[in-house]
Amino acid sequence: MLQRIHRPGILSLALGLPAPSLFPSAGLAAAAAKVMAEEPLALQYRPTLEPLRRQVVALMARRGVTCVPEQVFLTAGGQQGMSLLTRLLLDPGGTVLVEDRVYSGFQQVLDPFQPKRLTVPAHPETGIDVDAVRVLLERGERPALLYTMSDGHNPLGVSMPLESRQRLVALAREHQLPIIEDDAYGLLQYEPQTLPALRGLEDRWVYYVGSFSKVLAPALRVGWVVVPEAMVGRLATVKEASDIDTTTFAQRVVLAFLESGGLPAHLEQLRAGYRERRDTLLAALERHLAPHGARWTKPACGMFVWVEFPDRVDTTVLLGRALEEVQVAFLPGQAFSVAGGRTASHGLRLNFSHAEPAVIEEAVSRLGRVLARS
Amino acid sequence: MLQRIHRPGILSLALGLPAPSLFPSAGLAAAAAKVMAEEPLALQYRPTLEPLRRQVVALMARRGVTCVPEQVFLTAGGQQGMSLLTRLLLDPGGTVLVEDRVYSGFQQVLDPFQPKRLTVPAHPETGIDVDAVRVLLERGERPALLYTMSDGHNPLGVSMPLESRQRLVALAREHQLPIIEDDAYGLLQYEPQTLPALRGLEDRWVYYVGSFSKVLAPALRVGWVVVPEAMVGRLATVKEASDIDTTTFAQRVVLAFLESGGLPAHLEQLRAGYRERRDTLLAALERHLAPHGARWTKPACGMFVWVEFPDRVDTTVLLGRALEEVQVAFLPGQAFSVAGGRTASHGLRLNFSHAEPAVIEEAVSRLGRVLARS
Repeated sequence: MLQRIHRPGILSLALGLPAPSLFPSAGLAAAAAKVMAEEPLALQYRPTLEPLRRQVVALMARRGVTCVPEQVFLTAGGQQGMSLLTRLLLDPGGTVLVEDRVYSGFQQVLDPFQPKRLTVPAHPETGIDVDAVRVLLERGERPALLYTMSDGHNPLGVSMPLESRQRLVALAREHQLPIIEDDAYGLLQYEPQTLPALRGLEDRWVYYVGSFSKVLAPALRVGWVVVPEAMVGRLATVKEASDIDTTTFAQRVVLAFLESGGLPAHLEQLRAGYRERRDTLLAALERHLAPHGARWTKPACGMFVWVEFPDRVDTTVLLGRALEEVQVAFLPGQAFSVAGGRTASHGLRLNFSHAEPAVIEEAVSRLGRVLARS
Repeated sequence: MLQRIHRPGILSLALGLPAPSLFPSAGLAAAAAKVMAEEPLALQYRPTLEPLRRQVVALMARRGVTCVPEQVFLTAGGQQGMSLLTRLLLDPGGTVLVEDRVYSGFQQVLDPFQPKRLTVPAHPETGIDVDAVRVLLERGERPALLYTMSDGHNPLGVSMPLESRQRLVALAREHQLPIIEDDAYGLLQYEPQTLPALRGLEDRWVYYVGSFSKVLAPALRVGWVVVPEAMVGRLATVKEASDIDTTTFAQRVVLAFLESGGLPAHLEQLRAGYRERRDTLLAALERHLAPHGARWTKPACGMFVWVEFPDRVDTTVLLGRALEEVQVAFLPGQAFSVAGGRTASHGLRLNFSHAEPAVIEEAVSRLGRVLARS
């Protein structure tokens, strides 16, 4: 997929990539140089990096989460966090509960387990349908885990209302249902008011997955999970077997960057930059796609807008035409739909973080041209 | 384990750590600075790093292996290479073939599969007992894989004779037995004559695992596997689900270091340094442990010497006494023994790469004192 979208000449709103122009390259370069110069054991096998766990604790306060360093486990990015947690929670052939549109990377995590997938609806306006979760649990289903995203949902862009969050964690407590909360985008907030992550409302049943990929840089491969303290040792054992549980050079670079105090200003810059791109995309949708019956929501967080079309538009077909006729890429709803779940063939996901605003406007305008010819 | 051995005041010959004084820190710092300054997309999600695959191909020639970039798959270190290969080759509850003393990290890879472990003897002088492998296969056993190390065996220190290599790969061909060849130490050769890796003798059934951890630095987490081209796509799918298959910043740093041409001189320096430490250890063993009936072999490669004692010495008991009475650490044979395999309770593994020569001499001298009091 990466290969195809990187084809020269394609205007892509397909992938969930950060904007390279907003990487804190100078700050990370200074951090890397400092680590090499000042940390004699930066390149050695070493136990987990305690000061980075403490920095994560401070960062979690921004998400309304109170935790201690002993509950933080450092990973090679958010994907590894989800993968390790799933290996601890799910047995082969077990049952999982997911929304009817799900980040494809989590589906890849699930595939080897060949689980039974129970689905509940998710709405671009209100997120996961908590009543549907309740009905499933009350009729006796006992899924090994529920996977969801409270803020900046991928692919729907939605952030859950407070009441949904409260009702969902209450159900988790009542039915002892582990929730994997994927919060890869949670620090990319564009509105003044933000709500606490699920982990901020429930610390026993919510396993929180965080990442520096979207707020610093993906190629560093640094993320974390926040879990009950007793689970950290089990995660260490699984990670040890996967790729050695050692402090990495990249973790030290991230720590040095955080210790330099550069993060708050960088986050402000990211938010301003991505807010502008989001608003560019929303205006372009109004101009070019509304006339064709498209509807969408305004995300308060993250990198994506979910667009829905009238029934006659199949977005997988539309993608083929967009690539061929106007060299534009996006991800069709089908890429996120779950076997057994509601089909997403009339929806598509647009990313607004990666392309420059002028490219966003041009790409959406071209999509409008394709739709006009339908 | 890492936590305990890092306790201050302990003279440790326990772990397989490189010598920090021999890290190419200046070269890697220059490489990191160059990447940050010159690679605009060094921090972004990117497809696999083709130039690094080509550098690996060149490096493999030193191990007698001819391959093409399409057969090279980049990993987050050797452990990840073994873990990904095992997930492709082994089903839960399947059968594996291992030596009776095995690197504990590979046993951790196996544990979640709860496999049936068939064992064959391994000798500190001659390595894996190929006749025993033949007998097992001829009586109809069909293991999903054989795991072994042709050079610088961990924990035995042995490098297989050429004839054993040839006979082993012939058996693999004849019985269609996949071999995972863990070559983490293969570039650390101390004698003028070296033999080709198993992958150099058989390119269909040998899956080669390489790593920069021991020759550059562990905290970079960069390694590779060499496999048939058809397997690379399947590895990419498994890695994608584990931790995203993207070029990492550390891979770019390794590439820049290799392109600077610094590796050959660095390898010479490592070999000279580790050869001196090996010889220091061997002389100390002669002086302090030979009087207590210890026997050992002279490794031509790697980081370890395997020492065997008369039956009355239990090395797990000896470790407890060594830690308490003289503050010396090593790994007892028990740490490498396989359920169902021959007990290794009279052997122990000593590392000679990590400690300075004077520390090696002092640690072995203290072990001699403990044995004298037995």
